Amino acid sequence: MTTTEAGPTASLGTPGQQDAAPHGDAGHDHATYGYHQQKDEHLKRLRRIEGQIRGLQRMVDEDTYCIDILTQVSASTKALQSFALQLLEEHLRHCVADAAVEGGSEIDAKVEEATKAIGRLLRT
Amino acid sequence: MTTTEAGPTASLGTPGQQDAAPHGDAGHDHATYGYHQQKDEHLKRLRRIEGQIRGLQRMVDEDTYCIDILTQVSASTKALQSFALQLLEEHLRHCVADAAVEGGSEIDAKVEEATKAIGRLLRT
Amino acid sequence: MTTTEAGPTASLGTPGQQDAAPHGDAGHDHATYGYHQQKDEHLKRLRRIEGQIRGLQRMVDEDTYCIDILTQVSASTKALQSFALQLLEEHLRHCVADAAVEGGSEIDAKVEEATKAIGRLLRT
Amino acid sequence: MTTTEAGPTASLGTPGQQDAAPHGDAGHDHATYGYHQQKDEHLKRLRRIEGQIRGLQRMVDEDTYCIDILTQVSASTKALQSFALQLLEEHLRHCVADAAVEGGSEIDAKVEEATKAIGRLLRT
Repeated sequence: MTTTEAGPTASLGTPGQQDAAPHGDAGHDHATYGYHQQKDEHLKRLRRIEGQIRGLQRMVDEDTYCIDILTQVSASTKALQSFALQLLEEHLRHCVADAAVEGGSEIDAKVEEATKAIGRLLRT
Repeated sequence: MTTTEAGPTASLGTPGQQDAAPHGDAGHDHATYGYHQQKDEHLKRLRRIEGQIRGLQRMVDEDTYCIDILTQVSASTKALQSFALQLLEEHLRHCVADAAVEGGSEIDAKVEEATKAIGRLLRT
Repeated sequence: MTTTEAGPTASLGTPGQQDAAPHGDAGHDHATYGYHQQKDEHLKRLRRIEGQIRGLQRMVDEDTYCIDILTQVSASTKALQSFALQLLEEHLRHCVADAAVEGGSEIDAKVEEATKAIGRLLRT
Repeated sequence: MTTTEAGPTASLGTPGQQDAAPHGDAGHDHATYGYHQQKDEHLKRLRRIEGQIRGLQRMVDEDTYCIDILTQVSASTKALQSFALQLLEEHLRHCVADAAVEGGSEIDAKVEEATKAIGRLLRT
């Protein structure tokens, strides 16, 4: 965030540049998949969710009232969905947008893949 | 909305009418928004969903067993989600991909907007 | 609604009564399924949802921006879920509760049936 | 299942310890809330979900492709929903049915409470 790195879409802002290597260039072998920069935030979120799941085990173990457990399940599901949405946003911003810039048929495959993933999220 | 239009699909049933350029005027400059090509398919889907909702009214009116009504509600919700997914896919393929190709900051706004829409779908 | 019928749970409020025929007695052949009393409200809700679906057709027909259509889809789905929840509440209050009062194995079947219906709603 | 496998959380169980009647032993009058009998099954499910969440952290940490992570999120959400449904079924079968048998206004409160919990699950 405060680093001087050229982000994956940096070249888009410099139209005069020849853009010889739009992405995946040397030295960035796997600075991939968009969510890279938010990695720490993602891990923090997931550890919080893990804590919620352990809280659920404690609730079951201590015979907590069913409805209170269900409320906690809803909170965990919401946290998972929220994590998924953030991941999806980064995926669209990087992988899908990159495929569009590259041109060719790749964009169709990427969009279909993303839509299927959204469909799986919707159906759960 | 402020027009004197006869029902939503009225023009479809009156072939003799002049239907003076209700939208998509000369040149079709803004035959936009991706889903344009699937318009007929979308309308067909939505009319089928409308039929399902009318079916629900009939079921309530005829005192159908609650569980059977709930099953039909699930089917209608699924059909609506499926319509939304198709619309979203076209939106990503056209509007979002176009913004990526154009470059600039538009892509960020488009992706954020799409993600928010997905979030609203998830939360219903 | 305007009748003088004793509702299905009316006897609960009159402890002195002998409650000879707790439910399903002669003359009430199909004052059934709980949601009977809210019938008008249900029909009103469903007609409003039907109007929303027709609104969606108009939006598609007029080339409305995809995201605005998706927002309206979310609203319709939410309205359907809300209708389902109200129906479910009445079902639990009447059909399921009645089966519990009757005793026997009927309650297990009713609860399993209701849970499956909830599962179908969740998965859409 | 009947193996001697050391599960992912095996160390939590302090091997060597005899684990003499960890819970549910004689004299627990408030072994209530329906889900009591399935307690072990619930805990096993939740530990499996906890393992899935840890798997997600591993995936993020190893820069797994976004879409594959989203697929795993969907699986975890589905597992949580499935746990919630089982809990809900037991709640209806015991707490709600008991309130119905007892009579009085308790059943209304129980049904309203359960419906609200279902609504929270639906909206996530």
